[in-house]
Amino acid sequence: MAPTAIQFQLHTTDHNCRARRATLQTPHGPVELPAFMPVGTQGTVKALTAAMVRESGAQMMLCNTYHLAIRPGEDVVADLGGLHAFTGWDGPILTDSGGFQLFSLGKSTKVTEEAAVFRSHIDGSLLELSPERSIAIQETLGSDIAMVLDHVVALPAPDKDVREANERTVRWAVRCRAAQQRTDQAQFAIVQGGLSERMRIECAQQLADLDFPGYAVGGLSVGEDEADRNRMLDATCPVLPADKPRYLMGVGKPHDLLEAIRRGIDMFDCVMPTRNGRNALAFTDRGTIRLRNLKHQRETRPLEDECPCPACGHSQGYLRHLFQAREMLGPMLVSAHNLSYYQRLMERTRQAIESGRFMEFYAERIRDWTANA
Amino acid sequence: MAPTAIQFQLHTTDHNCRARRATLQTPHGPVELPAFMPVGTQGTVKALTAAMVRESGAQMMLCNTYHLAIRPGEDVVADLGGLHAFTGWDGPILTDSGGFQLFSLGKSTKVTEEAAVFRSHIDGSLLELSPERSIAIQETLGSDIAMVLDHVVALPAPDKDVREANERTVRWAVRCRAAQQRTDQAQFAIVQGGLSERMRIECAQQLADLDFPGYAVGGLSVGEDEADRNRMLDATCPVLPADKPRYLMGVGKPHDLLEAIRRGIDMFDCVMPTRNGRNALAFTDRGTIRLRNLKHQRETRPLEDECPCPACGHSQGYLRHLFQAREMLGPMLVSAHNLSYYQRLMERTRQAIESGRFMEFYAERIRDWTANA
Repeated sequence: MAPTAIQFQLHTTDHNCRARRATLQTPHGPVELPAFMPVGTQGTVKALTAAMVRESGAQMMLCNTYHLAIRPGEDVVADLGGLHAFTGWDGPILTDSGGFQLFSLGKSTKVTEEAAVFRSHIDGSLLELSPERSIAIQETLGSDIAMVLDHVVALPAPDKDVREANERTVRWAVRCRAAQQRTDQAQFAIVQGGLSERMRIECAQQLADLDFPGYAVGGLSVGEDEADRNRMLDATCPVLPADKPRYLMGVGKPHDLLEAIRRGIDMFDCVMPTRNGRNALAFTDRGTIRLRNLKHQRETRPLEDECPCPACGHSQGYLRHLFQAREMLGPMLVSAHNLSYYQRLMERTRQAIESGRFMEFYAERIRDWTANA
Repeated sequence: MAPTAIQFQLHTTDHNCRARRATLQTPHGPVELPAFMPVGTQGTVKALTAAMVRESGAQMMLCNTYHLAIRPGEDVVADLGGLHAFTGWDGPILTDSGGFQLFSLGKSTKVTEEAAVFRSHIDGSLLELSPERSIAIQETLGSDIAMVLDHVVALPAPDKDVREANERTVRWAVRCRAAQQRTDQAQFAIVQGGLSERMRIECAQQLADLDFPGYAVGGLSVGEDEADRNRMLDATCPVLPADKPRYLMGVGKPHDLLEAIRRGIDMFDCVMPTRNGRNALAFTDRGTIRLRNLKHQRETRPLEDECPCPACGHSQGYLRHLFQAREMLGPMLVSAHNLSYYQRLMERTRQAIESGRFMEFYAERIRDWTANA
């Protein structure tokens, strides 16, 4: 097996739960875990400059293979110096495989053993994504971590379909591994299995045997109950190797992050802080603030008193005005705040794990968020 | 007469033209002249944080009285700490009087000797703007420089109408002066007179006799020929007192700025750098760059090699991608670049005047801009 481009250093595992404090070394620097990756779908975290993303405290960014392959095309990104030069983000970058977009955007997606065939959401042209093609695109883009192409099925689905997709996901992971050319990019495998603990465990075991440098839990955050998601994490994480990073894809609210960390997850990505920020919803320790509400019109306090983000240099009244006046600065500032909030939440989580008091921190946070919900 | 809130220090007047190098001291710090003020219509320079505006090199910002009075209302701005606290811009701020918006937005505007009556462009409600009301709003907003309410007429217009508006503008300037309460805000009078040199001179002389702390040239940049505008400046500037700042409202392209500076203008404001930036048009020393053009798709160079702005940390190809993908970051970055370009142009202009070579600098700039037009 090729030497991996990343190293995972596990520092501490909490005594009262599965929460882990670790560091992930990548070709573009370290990422302290647990970590939240902001999403730069089209090569930009929406409404933020790369400097603003850095100032939020983020260490690693996610970009979407599907979107970048369709526009501007991975060859254009490569001609412009690869994903790091292209985006101006010199820290670590993870790219997804395109599998989730096939599932979420591709009404006309057809999946065979060879590849997924689908229509571009931009111009309707017919495109094909195989495991080999997904890896080739991600290698051309030049991310630090590439995700294997997985087969996500819409839930609920018959056991037979879930099992088939599961088995295909494992076979495709093997093909992704075989397609690897770059030594400065690490591949993460993705555990599928719907909402069946048994199938999640089977998939995780098979992938664990393949000894990938990292593992993701996929096919969640697609509308399932929180209890179901947590049940899947409870089943899956213990099966995954302790000496590899674990990434829960597409999750979630601050509360969801702590629930998953408690169950052994190290990495997250989600559009929630930026999408909600663009829609005037701010995350704080006292729950969410809907800035469009009239009660904030003359509010001189910032969203949070101690927050160092650029939004919190302003009153809530000003932020509200920006949204009422449809000024771009509103989405910019509240996206920056929300990302900063997520990053500070991860920083406090890391400190709590280090000092052996994660479950107290978790309980405090749940209490304060819920009290103001 | 009340002590004025600002001081104008004239350092140099060019030997070969009327270009001036000066400093304007305001309650919120100095402004080196000639200066370009970015426009923060609704209390934000569109698509930029206050920090980004500061990093562009801007020292003074303009906000629009009409827009802020309608939304969120000047009382809300005051409750949120006044315009500086509201916007997070701690440097000098100039507010216009609302007169120009009555002219440009107010199809239904009716002007009497007492006041202008118009309908809100937001909710259609009937509003009245008198000289006294304009000053009261601007004092409530708390800008460093307030503009008197003037009467702008659409051109071409019969001499009689221009003369009437001119005389009313002078009478309204007197009423604005009489309405002044704050000692930490200076009023600038506005010279009108359409495209008649005689009426421009008459208006300027009458306002000069009133000894305002500063003077603006208004009613231009409304579609007139460049030659007409320059003719008006040639007539007006010599009549204005040499020891007061001169502000050409709403102008213009980089070329227009140098033409006006050559004729004795010290201050400018214009939406052009930000409006064009939002529309993928960048200003450079080699003329404008239309980023949507396909030829920039794989261009690895930045807009300008030596530019310190956040856009110029990226390739032109990336900037183009952002516009193609309709990402907010495109307007953000190119607005920042254009403002930075305008500020660097003013900085180089000031240096050229100081070293007695403004006309050489002017000739170089016109040549390079034109060669690539």
